[in-house]
Amino acid sequence: MTLGRRRGPTETRPLILKAAAQLFAEKGFDGASVRAIARNASVDPALVHHFFGTKEALFVAAMEFPFEPAQIVPRIVEGPREEIGERIVRTFLTVWGNDEARPRFLAIVRTATTSEQGAAMLREFITAALLNRVGDALEIPRLRITLAAAQMMGVVMMRYVLELEPVVSASDEELVEMLAPVIQGYLAP
Amino acid sequence: MTLGRRRGPTETRPLILKAAAQLFAEKGFDGASVRAIARNASVDPALVHHFFGTKEALFVAAMEFPFEPAQIVPRIVEGPREEIGERIVRTFLTVWGNDEARPRFLAIVRTATTSEQGAAMLREFITAALLNRVGDALEIPRLRITLAAAQMMGVVMMRYVLELEPVVSASDEELVEMLAPVIQGYLAP
Repeated sequence: MTLGRRRGPTETRPLILKAAAQLFAEKGFDGASVRAIARNASVDPALVHHFFGTKEALFVAAMEFPFEPAQIVPRIVEGPREEIGERIVRTFLTVWGNDEARPRFLAIVRTATTSEQGAAMLREFITAALLNRVGDALEIPRLRITLAAAQMMGVVMMRYVLELEPVVSASDEELVEMLAPVIQGYLAP
Repeated sequence: MTLGRRRGPTETRPLILKAAAQLFAEKGFDGASVRAIARNASVDPALVHHFFGTKEALFVAAMEFPFEPAQIVPRIVEGPREEIGERIVRTFLTVWGNDEARPRFLAIVRTATTSEQGAAMLREFITAALLNRVGDALEIPRLRITLAAAQMMGVVMMRYVLELEPVVSASDEELVEMLAPVIQGYLAP
């Protein structure tokens, strides 16, 4: 590939974002250096700083979610209360089943386990985007909401990080059948 | 500190293991270099290779568990079936509540999220040490056992990795009260 000089910003920016998403997914936030991202994007590291400023800002841009929690969560909590467990599990499996989204989510999980900053980032996102919204809608102890989230986070770990069978090859229907009553039990006991 | 030359092997080996446990906990398996471990232990990197061979062998030695799954798991599954959920949650909280064990477990989780090798290591350990033993004792679908493990893995993520409230400051009793019925439901429905 040629170096970045002859390319315009509309061409360079997405190249950097793509390389960043890939390297963050592989190495986590701390492990992926701006230098390595620039190298994979075939641009000068100075260009990365020029477009995004900090590595953190690059991370946020690269991880841009393919869905809007602000839109999805209210729809989930406002439906029939007796099916909230099933709605949550189905939405969760759909979002994680998206082949473009999954590497980004996994990058965020990796970052959260390997750096304080990454843990704070994910903690703040989960709190603001998910737990607060669910908490505002359902009048139940926050511990219940968080343990329901823990169940789904554990499924992520088993299915997508450890790739542990039979969770990997279980169908969405099998998982809904087992998980929906558990989430339902936490959120609408 | 002095360099390792004047120290004997009985002194040097534990220094290396201590530095390794610390750095693996901070950086994960890939992020912690033998060079950095040697530096933190104030020994020559060649000595680390001399004592442990590979970085993987050093990891296994440094992560040495403070408990024997081979002893604990049979005791859990052989007790009264109607309290298996509670026994599992209590044992789990006790093991993770151990201040010496926790950084080691966290290192393993970090390693699992950041390297294929680490994921395989944890997957193989969980399968051999926990899931197979529980599966041999209880005649229930493996998916149930793995989703119970996922619930507890999610608690680890929320409580010790993301440090998300109120899971962090919840008492063991509160957690047992909420989690035991869920684990019970998976394992002894």
